[in-house]
Amino acid sequence: MHKQSSNLRKKRKGTKNDLLIDEYVYTGDWKEETHVKLIQYNESTFSVHDLKVQDDPKNYFHKNEVNWVHISGLSDTALIVKMGESLGLHAPDIQDIFTSQHIAKIEPYDDKTILVINTFYFNEAKELQQEHIYMVLGEDYVFSFQESVLPLFDNVVQAIGKNVAKVRSRSADYLFFLLANNVLGNYIDVLATLEDNIEIMEEVVVGGDIPNDFGKRIQANRRDNLQLKKSILPLKDDFKNLLHNENRLIRDENKVYLNDLEDRLLFIIQSIEICRESVDALLDLYFSNNDLRMNEIMKRLTVVATIFIPLTFVVGVWGMNFKFMPELEWKYGYIMAWALMAAIVVFVWWYIKKNRWN
Amino acid sequence: MHKQSSNLRKKRKGTKNDLLIDEYVYTGDWKEETHVKLIQYNESTFSVHDLKVQDDPKNYFHKNEVNWVHISGLSDTALIVKMGESLGLHAPDIQDIFTSQHIAKIEPYDDKTILVINTFYFNEAKELQQEHIYMVLGEDYVFSFQESVLPLFDNVVQAIGKNVAKVRSRSADYLFFLLANNVLGNYIDVLATLEDNIEIMEEVVVGGDIPNDFGKRIQANRRDNLQLKKSILPLKDDFKNLLHNENRLIRDENKVYLNDLEDRLLFIIQSIEICRESVDALLDLYFSNNDLRMNEIMKRLTVVATIFIPLTFVVGVWGMNFKFMPELEWKYGYIMAWALMAAIVVFVWWYIKKNRWN
Amino acid sequence: MHKQSSNLRKKRKGTKNDLLIDEYVYTGDWKEETHVKLIQYNESTFSVHDLKVQDDPKNYFHKNEVNWVHISGLSDTALIVKMGESLGLHAPDIQDIFTSQHIAKIEPYDDKTILVINTFYFNEAKELQQEHIYMVLGEDYVFSFQESVLPLFDNVVQAIGKNVAKVRSRSADYLFFLLANNVLGNYIDVLATLEDNIEIMEEVVVGGDIPNDFGKRIQANRRDNLQLKKSILPLKDDFKNLLHNENRLIRDENKVYLNDLEDRLLFIIQSIEICRESVDALLDLYFSNNDLRMNEIMKRLTVVATIFIPLTFVVGVWGMNFKFMPELEWKYGYIMAWALMAAIVVFVWWYIKKNRWN
Amino acid sequence: MHKQSSNLRKKRKGTKNDLLIDEYVYTGDWKEETHVKLIQYNESTFSVHDLKVQDDPKNYFHKNEVNWVHISGLSDTALIVKMGESLGLHAPDIQDIFTSQHIAKIEPYDDKTILVINTFYFNEAKELQQEHIYMVLGEDYVFSFQESVLPLFDNVVQAIGKNVAKVRSRSADYLFFLLANNVLGNYIDVLATLEDNIEIMEEVVVGGDIPNDFGKRIQANRRDNLQLKKSILPLKDDFKNLLHNENRLIRDENKVYLNDLEDRLLFIIQSIEICRESVDALLDLYFSNNDLRMNEIMKRLTVVATIFIPLTFVVGVWGMNFKFMPELEWKYGYIMAWALMAAIVVFVWWYIKKNRWN
Amino acid sequence: MHKQSSNLRKKRKGTKNDLLIDEYVYTGDWKEETHVKLIQYNESTFSVHDLKVQDDPKNYFHKNEVNWVHISGLSDTALIVKMGESLGLHAPDIQDIFTSQHIAKIEPYDDKTILVINTFYFNEAKELQQEHIYMVLGEDYVFSFQESVLPLFDNVVQAIGKNVAKVRSRSADYLFFLLANNVLGNYIDVLATLEDNIEIMEEVVVGGDIPNDFGKRIQANRRDNLQLKKSILPLKDDFKNLLHNENRLIRDENKVYLNDLEDRLLFIIQSIEICRESVDALLDLYFSNNDLRMNEIMKRLTVVATIFIPLTFVVGVWGMNFKFMPELEWKYGYIMAWALMAAIVVFVWWYIKKNRWN
Ligand SMILES: [Mg+2]
Ligand SMILES: [Mg+2]
Ligand SMILES: [Mg+2]
Ligand SMILES: [Mg+2]
Ligand SMILES: [Mg+2]
Ligand SMILES: [Mg+2]
Ligand SMILES: [Mg+2]
Ligand SMILES: [Mg+2]
Ligand SMILES: [Mg+2]
Ligand SMILES: [Mg+2]
Ligand SMILES: [Mg+2]
Ligand SMILES: [Mg+2]
Ligand SMILES: [Mg+2]
Ligand SMILES: [Mg+2]
Ligand SMILES: [Mg+2]
Ligand SMILES: [Mg+2]
Ligand SMILES: [Mg+2]
Ligand SMILES: [Mg+2]
Ligand SMILES: [Mg+2]
Ligand SMILES: [Mg+2]
Ligand SMILES: [Mg+2]
Ligand SMILES: [Mg+2]
Ligand SMILES: [Mg+2]
Ligand SMILES: [Mg+2]
Ligand SMILES: [Mg+2]
Ligand SMILES: [Mg+2]
Ligand SMILES: [Mg+2]
Ligand SMILES: [Mg+2]
Ligand SMILES: [Mg+2]
Ligand SMILES: [Mg+2]
Ligand SMILES: [Mg+2]
Repeated sequence: MHKQSSNLRKKRKGTKNDLLIDEYVYTGDWKEETHVKLIQYNESTFSVHDLKVQDDPKNYFHKNEVNWVHISGLSDTALIVKMGESLGLHAPDIQDIFTSQHIAKIEPYDDKTILVINTFYFNEAKELQQEHIYMVLGEDYVFSFQESVLPLFDNVVQAIGKNVAKVRSRSADYLFFLLANNVLGNYIDVLATLEDNIEIMEEVVVGGDIPNDFGKRIQANRRDNLQLKKSILPLKDDFKNLLHNENRLIRDENKVYLNDLEDRLLFIIQSIEICRESVDALLDLYFSNNDLRMNEIMKRLTVVATIFIPLTFVVGVWGMNFKFMPELEWKYGYIMAWALMAAIVVFVWWYIKKNRWN
Repeated sequence: MHKQSSNLRKKRKGTKNDLLIDEYVYTGDWKEETHVKLIQYNESTFSVHDLKVQDDPKNYFHKNEVNWVHISGLSDTALIVKMGESLGLHAPDIQDIFTSQHIAKIEPYDDKTILVINTFYFNEAKELQQEHIYMVLGEDYVFSFQESVLPLFDNVVQAIGKNVAKVRSRSADYLFFLLANNVLGNYIDVLATLEDNIEIMEEVVVGGDIPNDFGKRIQANRRDNLQLKKSILPLKDDFKNLLHNENRLIRDENKVYLNDLEDRLLFIIQSIEICRESVDALLDLYFSNNDLRMNEIMKRLTVVATIFIPLTFVVGVWGMNFKFMPELEWKYGYIMAWALMAAIVVFVWWYIKKNRWN
Repeated sequence: MHKQSSNLRKKRKGTKNDLLIDEYVYTGDWKEETHVKLIQYNESTFSVHDLKVQDDPKNYFHKNEVNWVHISGLSDTALIVKMGESLGLHAPDIQDIFTSQHIAKIEPYDDKTILVINTFYFNEAKELQQEHIYMVLGEDYVFSFQESVLPLFDNVVQAIGKNVAKVRSRSADYLFFLLANNVLGNYIDVLATLEDNIEIMEEVVVGGDIPNDFGKRIQANRRDNLQLKKSILPLKDDFKNLLHNENRLIRDENKVYLNDLEDRLLFIIQSIEICRESVDALLDLYFSNNDLRMNEIMKRLTVVATIFIPLTFVVGVWGMNFKFMPELEWKYGYIMAWALMAAIVVFVWWYIKKNRWN
Repeated sequence: MHKQSSNLRKKRKGTKNDLLIDEYVYTGDWKEETHVKLIQYNESTFSVHDLKVQDDPKNYFHKNEVNWVHISGLSDTALIVKMGESLGLHAPDIQDIFTSQHIAKIEPYDDKTILVINTFYFNEAKELQQEHIYMVLGEDYVFSFQESVLPLFDNVVQAIGKNVAKVRSRSADYLFFLLANNVLGNYIDVLATLEDNIEIMEEVVVGGDIPNDFGKRIQANRRDNLQLKKSILPLKDDFKNLLHNENRLIRDENKVYLNDLEDRLLFIIQSIEICRESVDALLDLYFSNNDLRMNEIMKRLTVVATIFIPLTFVVGVWGMNFKFMPELEWKYGYIMAWALMAAIVVFVWWYIKKNRWN
Repeated sequence: MHKQSSNLRKKRKGTKNDLLIDEYVYTGDWKEETHVKLIQYNESTFSVHDLKVQDDPKNYFHKNEVNWVHISGLSDTALIVKMGESLGLHAPDIQDIFTSQHIAKIEPYDDKTILVINTFYFNEAKELQQEHIYMVLGEDYVFSFQESVLPLFDNVVQAIGKNVAKVRSRSADYLFFLLANNVLGNYIDVLATLEDNIEIMEEVVVGGDIPNDFGKRIQANRRDNLQLKKSILPLKDDFKNLLHNENRLIRDENKVYLNDLEDRLLFIIQSIEICRESVDALLDLYFSNNDLRMNEIMKRLTVVATIFIPLTFVVGVWGMNFKFMPELEWKYGYIMAWALMAAIVVFVWWYIKKNRWN
């Protein structure tokens, strides 16, 4: 994995006005070489090829098969532009392939449908990583682009190889749903981790042994939640439109899978919301615990001070050097002093208890 | 009741991408054996049978009767899949039976209507339990699936036996509403408990004797409220659509019961909202009480310190060992000292009272 | 007034599943006997009768008159069910008469229109009371049900007697609006009280002399506000639909009164919102005042401590018993000590003033 | 200006149920006599008359001129009712003229359009004043009602006199927009004052010299903001409808002015929102400053106490009267004591600095 | 750059009622002379001219070229009004050119489309500057107005000169999109700065070394965020309408660029939202850190006081002057006293540790 910066906030290079430059610019932080893989299958065939990067994958397409071109690593701008143009993509759509921080969307054209989405996972340092995914669905093909060369879709390739759930008898739109479903699965994994963290932090707050980086961890949880939310919320309406409008590329027998995908999307959006409300509630709990602990500390100080300050005054009285202080001469003066002090302690203690200061 | 974990947050097994595995996976925590019960009735007949788990219930259906198949315990995946396929359910719909954490929804097909919903109840440990319910309404049948083998619908069976409200003269859609109504009744029970808890906590806050686990109890109340909300809110639009769109399975004479069901749903959603706002208000009250108590504590400390610190200084003065301190020699010096200290106490007390420090 | 519990939160008896019992159940707390009053009028006639409770009011209806049946006290379930059935109400609609905690709604059938609403008033103990009102509008009749026997609609009867605003020349729908308007008038009265209370509390906070039950009073205000809101908000859309959809029972010449009723409803919803935001703002003011008072207290303590602690140290120094402490022998040692202490006080005071500690 | 109470919250007299009384009731606090002014103009004519209050203005209308009747002071109920009836207003619409606290709205009838709106201004005591404005637009006339006799629309009369922007060549709808525009202009003035106040308060908070009535001033700002918001928000949809629906009274060539009016309305709504968020942010800043100041105070106390408490203990040690305390006899004992105390001060100071307590 | 006041809140001159004055008023703070530039191009030609300010640019238009008139500086009201009238703009639309604080909007007329928008940038003092931009798209021309003479669109002129992305083969609508895209690019730059600032402040809060102006910086960030939000949010619906409604001026082949522009707008709106939530979260973190630090301070004070107050009491006891205090005479009395005090310190320390006071 070659990523320049683990920071989610990318330097949005070239965003000033991308219509004013004559070339396409990749705006993400990944420095991966471009790899192109062609997966082709139907009920009876299945093949996986690494393509040379200078080739147009369309030249290798088979009729009566689903042709899936998977591109990982976006550094070879020229090649990807050539592919985009060969697919008949408009210039702004080609630029979107390279725009790491793009709003998520589904763009349904007559002869193709585009999906722009982010996928998420935690890296080894347990930091949330975001990766921009771009997919094109055509009559008999799917193109999928990812920023890194991580094996994000290898499980899909394997499942096709094993013809799981008769995937090889199904059309390209089903593959498109399969890939989208895989991305959504990553959201669910990330959310499970965020929820686990909230539960751990809740136990920590209730237990009272709060680590110093607690505030930072709450902050990180909220930030990750925001990242997920912004990346998936814009898709809600787009999915609904895709499901309810006519779309030549989506076969009737596969609509039930699109419907299922939409349920998953709604479940994720709901879980993000729940997760957010949980962390807000946790923060309230944390603040209230801070207040309680402060009260405890001050009660202790008050009790200590209320008991000893009068005593110190009393011993100060008999430490005065007046000539005529008859009690100093008394035989049992000292014992009387101790008795008085004991009486003060008892009285103050009783008073504190009665009034529930502690 | 055999439930692995009382924790609401399930390990979402198999959620990574359920289109990539060739078998259906139950994702919940209940480890119950599968039981199948067949209830059949019309105006003149009523029978309840336990079916052998390898049978397809459809083989036992009677014409001119309502056939209700109730499946409790989802561990026998193979059997349930067979039933689903016999009903003509699509693969993703069958998977939904086993998906413990699914978004709530109504799916109106031409020849059947599916309801996915969660039911709730408190277990013996007073923890909120959630159970996934899946129901299918057909022309003359209802299938209902639940995760546990708890008798969630036994009261419905009994009412059919007694032909309460002429239920046996009514069609399958009425039974469907009856079962849904039963689930919604559980929400109302849970909400009543949550509201009772809020009222108890309110009295506790106002009384001032706040237990140590108070923050935790507020947290639990909020969490339970969130669980209810997320499980019922998605149904709002679906119910509206079911009521206002044409649906071959719902008879005109029964629409009034569906309308009543929708009122109940709206009442529950509203009560969840109210309950949430009440607990938020409670938290504000709690914070404000913390502040007040802190102020009380500090006022006490300040009063004690303001009275005794000057006195201690005064006795310190006459405890000094200067050779020439004429007042030490005075006959009434000591009494004068006490008089001065009394005067200080009176003055400080008057000053405190005048300025309302306490 | 015979009400079991002054508590707004009713025990929702029979809510578990009201389709599973064969009888109707009143779920409220009022234990009033049922009274039935029949008011009949047209341009030239006006009569008010107490009906025997076993009679069906419809038998006494006059043609060419508006027939208004007012039922107060819901304990005689059998009678009210008989009336409901005679009106042709569906079973769930009859149950709604007895359901004290029902969502507010307008149900427009072809031949009748039902209004479910709550009315509010403060009882002698200044606690907010809620009462469930159920109204049915037909071609030439209005039925109105209330839980208590309080004279909630007597002013309407009197106005009809006096033919105020030519009410007796108007049709039943106008009477329906009149009654609804009366209920909405109660909301405005309650809101005026809530707003007065907020203003009083605001003066109290600004004045600084905050009573101990202040938090409780804010809490009560919010709770009452929530009660009003939940009871009226669901009617917003229903009123809009009633005004804009065709309804055989509402004459064109009376639509202007329905429109006015809707304005009143919108005004109430807006006032509830305003009232809520005011009490939230009050709470912020209260918190900020608590903080300020705390700061005041601590500043006093700090000033007292900062002045006297060094002095006490100084007198302690010269209270030491070292043999060789030359200053103790000096003639003006004692005066010098006082001078030093005075200097310390002046310096500390100047320092405090300069740095604005107090 | 004769206003009974400067308080915005009016005693809503007669709101209990205004359909139950036979007369119209003015519910506001202004006690002004009614004045009626008739302004008539076309391209070549312009006249302003004070009408006797018993006259029906319609008798004085000129054909081919715009007839603007401006009524200030609503105490002469009988006259205004007569006018309303002569205009063909429905009873509830006439009551609206007298209802000081009415929801803002546009009511588009076939032959007339009614606008109910509040205007705002600060009185000499810098308190926000609200005045209810009621306007009727007809084919060739505009009626405008205001509660006070303040010259709210004199600038419009003057502009007509000067034929500014060819106003005299334009139809009655343009005059209607002109008057509404004038009212909206008052909102913008009030908002500018509220924004100025927020900026002043912000500087005060940042400067740190917070006056005692600060909380009260924030409260007043929020309350005023709420008043504006509730008075203008209901008009948003009504303006949109007026602009997009067919309306016989609004000429096509004047639609561009209505559009401009709507822009102004949207700008005001947006500014209210911004203003509200600014005051919320200010409150957060204020709370955070309170916290910071508290921390400052306590840090000082802690530093003073941490330095002097050990010293006081040390001098107490050598103030003890034990017979055998060898160091008391040492020649340099006293100096050594001072050296020790100096060492303690240095150490404590170094420790405080190292750990950044202050 | 000649700007009277760097303050974003303008004195809204002339807003009282701009229909009541006969001349157009510029309401902004820029005092720039008016410059007019004419850029004309097609596939084969490209020219840039400075126009004399008294000329009507339309006289210089070329057929078969795109004619772009860019006006910077709005002080020459007469000239700009003449241009507006020559374009056939309505009076309120001309006034909008001069209204510095106008709601953002798109106004689609039949023969032209108007865009009102604000652009933003940071000045040398790092304060956010807002500038009002007004654009008119016609058949073969674009007019663009800006308040300052800053070179906001020079990069567009250069790109046209270089024929970047074949801009010179495209129609006027494409130029319109290019200019709008440039403005949106400025939003993205400003947002990147705001996000950077939040990240820096976050590190500062976590690090603990919070500068005194921290609250002020948070406040500034929020205020800037509000400025951006209010300036762009109203455009959301307008863009949607422009994209989906028929518009004679926007060619089908350029719709894909409009769609891309809308994506950018949505991305900006989303980023503003995220940025706002981040700064809110930061504030919570900041408050929680204040609380923690307060607790730290008080814990230290409590520990110091709890250890030394009893010791000071003890030495006070043996500083009393009672005649009969046998322990004073003991040989090892003094050592015993030290032993006792050491024991007290050890006990208190153990007690503090055991109960985790610190
Ligand atoms: Mg794009
Ligand atoms: Mg994005
Ligand atoms: Mg669906
Ligand atoms: Mg979840
Ligand atoms: Mg929150
Ligand atoms: Mg706190
Ligand atoms: Mg599913
Ligand atoms: Mg769920
Ligand atoms: Mg929670
Ligand atoms: Mg309904
Ligand atoms: Mg409730
Ligand atoms: Mg909260
Ligand atoms: Mg709250
Ligand atoms: Mg607090
Ligand atoms: Mg009901
Ligand atoms: Mg209710
Ligand atoms: Mg209306
Ligand atoms: Mg009205
Ligand atoms: Mg009000
Ligand atoms: Mg608030
Ligand atoms: Mg505070
Ligand atoms: Mg109003
Ligand atoms: Mg418009
Ligand atoms: Mg304008
Ligand atoms: Mg503004
Ligand atoms: Mg806020
Ligand atoms: Mg806030
Ligand atoms: Mg789009
Ligand atoms: Mg962003
Ligand atoms: Mg927040
Ligand atoms: Mg705090």
